Amino acid sequence: MIKPVLVIHGGAGAISRAQTTPEVIQAYEDALRQILTEGERILAQGGCALDAVAEAVRLLEECPLFNAGYGAVFTHDAKHELDAAIMNGQTLQCGAVANVKTVRNPILAARAVMEHSPHVFFVGHDADAFARDQGLACVDQSFFSTPMRREQLQAAQRSGNETIVLDHDAMSAYQTSEAIAPLDENNKMGTVGAVALDCRGNLAAGTSTGGMTNKWPGRVGDSPLIGAGCYANNTTCAVSTTGKGEAFIRAVAAYDVSAQMEYAGRTLAQATQQLIHQKLPPLDGAGGLIAIDAHGNVAMPFNTEGMYRGSVVSGQAPFVAVHR
Amino acid sequence: MIKPVLVIHGGAGAISRAQTTPEVIQAYEDALRQILTEGERILAQGGCALDAVAEAVRLLEECPLFNAGYGAVFTHDAKHELDAAIMNGQTLQCGAVANVKTVRNPILAARAVMEHSPHVFFVGHDADAFARDQGLACVDQSFFSTPMRREQLQAAQRSGNETIVLDHDAMSAYQTSEAIAPLDENNKMGTVGAVALDCRGNLAAGTSTGGMTNKWPGRVGDSPLIGAGCYANNTTCAVSTTGKGEAFIRAVAAYDVSAQMEYAGRTLAQATQQLIHQKLPPLDGAGGLIAIDAHGNVAMPFNTEGMYRGSVVSGQAPFVAVHR
Repeated sequence: MIKPVLVIHGGAGAISRAQTTPEVIQAYEDALRQILTEGERILAQGGCALDAVAEAVRLLEECPLFNAGYGAVFTHDAKHELDAAIMNGQTLQCGAVANVKTVRNPILAARAVMEHSPHVFFVGHDADAFARDQGLACVDQSFFSTPMRREQLQAAQRSGNETIVLDHDAMSAYQTSEAIAPLDENNKMGTVGAVALDCRGNLAAGTSTGGMTNKWPGRVGDSPLIGAGCYANNTTCAVSTTGKGEAFIRAVAAYDVSAQMEYAGRTLAQATQQLIHQKLPPLDGAGGLIAIDAHGNVAMPFNTEGMYRGSVVSGQAPFVAVHR
Repeated sequence: MIKPVLVIHGGAGAISRAQTTPEVIQAYEDALRQILTEGERILAQGGCALDAVAEAVRLLEECPLFNAGYGAVFTHDAKHELDAAIMNGQTLQCGAVANVKTVRNPILAARAVMEHSPHVFFVGHDADAFARDQGLACVDQSFFSTPMRREQLQAAQRSGNETIVLDHDAMSAYQTSEAIAPLDENNKMGTVGAVALDCRGNLAAGTSTGGMTNKWPGRVGDSPLIGAGCYANNTTCAVSTTGKGEAFIRAVAAYDVSAQMEYAGRTLAQATQQLIHQKLPPLDGAGGLIAIDAHGNVAMPFNTEGMYRGSVVSGQAPFVAVHR
């Protein structure tokens, strides 16, 4: 009898230099706990890993505390460009979208690409059009905007036009409209993700992001790239990453964990530690990941000061944490 | 003293059902031989692997026989959408563009992303704008169009709107304006690529494509995805793939070769055979690849009937071939 497990993250980064409060930390932890609880319910009722992952990521997209969907950061030209990917570890089927601007839940668009097209990856307004044709909810760009994110953009642009902010960093110094986040909004990698093991032993992974504050329009990071920001394979593991996307692309990070397990016989713990603490730092690869293997082993390593993260084994109380 | 080596491909696929002629085969082989000769000259003069790869891919893009740059296939809406990636095996730096429509040589845009931006991957018109800002030649969409490719689109749309053609297949039955290609234009995966080893032991890889005839607009395949269609690492190998892009993404094909060498201790020949003949077929992964390791070993396996391919060891005569 396999015990289902769900793991989620809301991005990694540095601890706020400015003072945060126990109440704010509590708010982030409560959000993570609630999303874990809703995802766990799917798994407890015999639902599949793919459904649990898609729903957990959708809820993370809907939560304005995290940089994906509603509450996504702004690009240099004050727009939102969203990316997402999903992968089914049983079939190795996968779907992804990048640079979408109107689909409310990019993770559902990624899933629609996987399930209702012969392709894996769509980008730009054609990806939005595909999602609309699939009947997914579409919204105006302003739907994604929150006052917190607009202030982050303005702060980044005040501090130099070239400053690209990995979500959750500049916030602490400039924040006015909301309480200070526990991870520094100027140094946080803004991605959300989920991995799950269901009662039939199937794995799935999903990742979604709003990118980086003040990033160049058209830039795509690792999140929607199968093998970089997202990977799932029943024979090894499911992985969702968060960090400096360029380094995670260069390391082919998510698939590297699977390859270490498949080809070097390493455990999930060994493979993820090797990636996060040995391979990524020389590539300027600040960040972290969540991962799960087919036995239900969970790893949540990060080489930053904190990562919004949580896990739940079906039938048990959820674990959530922000700092080390 | 390391002997530089350059390897190129112009796509894999089935042998033409209709009769081709020795003259046409000769034309393809001559094009491959000439591009090898020009790339080899760079390496023989002490040039770096990255320069040789970029120039070989640029020349393949400029040759109308191959589906990249000038001579790219048409999408469903009769446009051209081009993708390319390049990677430096010495530094693991890489750059890529997808869904570009006006930059004349996508491989040069990918290199500019690598060398002149803090990012790895740009998509859509922002990628075109970046290339233009970098001073790269930009052209009207009509520049890429050739009568052969327009007939391929018309044939695909006559045979059913849903027919997506992997370059080099429908041609044979419908071709009127040009001689019949040695690989079936309706069953060929249209990608070009190059990998090189230079006299200092550095590896590089580059891949470029015009996609698939009649493909859905916005679809991106494996070619511009680091780890899927292109990968280079001095400690293992350089790889450029060609085939059904979706399968190559699901297999994280290019990085899989490197991971097999790094983690399982396999040779380049063993790793590439395993990928092409064991891993890809269950994923419907028709295609092939070119690869080279730091010792100058070359592999050019494919699981289709043919692949336009060639290699040259500096100072020796080039080898070129189309069929097995």
